[in-house]
Amino acid sequence: MPGGKIAPKAVVGRVSLYLRQLESYQRQGLTTVSSSQLGDPLSIKNAQVRKDLAFFGQFGHAGIGYRIGELIGVLRHIIGVDRDWPLVLVGLGNLGRALLKYRGFRTRGFHIVALFDNDRSKIGANHDGLVVEPIESLGRIVAQHDIRLAILAVPADAAQGVADQLVARGIRGILNFAPVSLLVPPGVNLVGVDLSVQLQNLVYKVQQSQGEVSCAG
Amino acid sequence: MPGGKIAPKAVVGRVSLYLRQLESYQRQGLTTVSSSQLGDPLSIKNAQVRKDLAFFGQFGHAGIGYRIGELIGVLRHIIGVDRDWPLVLVGLGNLGRALLKYRGFRTRGFHIVALFDNDRSKIGANHDGLVVEPIESLGRIVAQHDIRLAILAVPADAAQGVADQLVARGIRGILNFAPVSLLVPPGVNLVGVDLSVQLQNLVYKVQQSQGEVSCAG
Repeated sequence: MPGGKIAPKAVVGRVSLYLRQLESYQRQGLTTVSSSQLGDPLSIKNAQVRKDLAFFGQFGHAGIGYRIGELIGVLRHIIGVDRDWPLVLVGLGNLGRALLKYRGFRTRGFHIVALFDNDRSKIGANHDGLVVEPIESLGRIVAQHDIRLAILAVPADAAQGVADQLVARGIRGILNFAPVSLLVPPGVNLVGVDLSVQLQNLVYKVQQSQGEVSCAG
Repeated sequence: MPGGKIAPKAVVGRVSLYLRQLESYQRQGLTTVSSSQLGDPLSIKNAQVRKDLAFFGQFGHAGIGYRIGELIGVLRHIIGVDRDWPLVLVGLGNLGRALLKYRGFRTRGFHIVALFDNDRSKIGANHDGLVVEPIESLGRIVAQHDIRLAILAVPADAAQGVADQLVARGIRGILNFAPVSLLVPPGVNLVGVDLSVQLQNLVYKVQQSQGEVSCAG
């Protein structure tokens, strides 16, 4: 990456989408794409595609466009998914168990290597070959596998306490599914996925577009 | 809303977070908050809080701040969650079944009223009192309950086909969990939740902050 420049969050989000689209084209047997072919299925303008990719270097070839295999390699390296990332999953409720079975993680180099819960009735249970450990074992297992990332799928009222334990044991990135905002120290990264908030955003859009339709009609 | 002005997506996202935080304060027994008290737990600056809320009207009271009960009512109305929203859920795999049990939806006025799958082995099964219907019954059920919203939790290769059927039957908003970009006609709204993309964004942040630490150290 040129000069260690940090890409804005919006660019990084789009790079993940470009990567997904490029992999889809590669599976279809294509070897090159134009910026329009890359942006159109994602509803991203071709000028934006070119600007985003230029942030990381010059990858376009005159008269050819982008070479798919080359660009996939570069983008995977930029995002950091050209290596395996071991993860811990904390919280084996309904959502946690679904996330454990979610195939999209594994195909991206994300491997859940340990499970934790503080519910005594869940500890010791075997899910897909992994045994649920008590939260007290976190430090040992994180150190053993050199783990940096955790998926947090615990109830809202337990989330901050568990996050504090994760940070104290060396976790540096948390994907938080609990519907609550967490406080973490500088140097620890947080991405929140609040499904109700996403659904609320959708409802707002639906209401607005219904309003637009009635005004126009 | 003044003049039917449409709030930018970023503002709407933050309004959902403000609402969650206000409801948390209300449960704790507070009746008023300052913009700092509202923004701090969300890592949003107080000037931003005031600017966002001013977009929808004047709700602050000099010397008091915001009245929590009043502001909750206003924000719930703005987002459109002061009414019940019936939903259909399509796809009863691991993720779909977890979403069905996710309590966060129900407490927000989102009620899943019908389940669909195109897998013959899943049709007829009872989940939490709802029977899985074949996709062919979609039109009848959507009309019967006046449903506008759908949660799509089907595999990537089936998602566009199912989305087309949803749109044809009158669905106007889709919360898409399939890891693929969908094409929908104008007037239909889409919010995508790609869990791998969220995890990739987290990995990028973790890498960048490790880079920063090593440069500084």
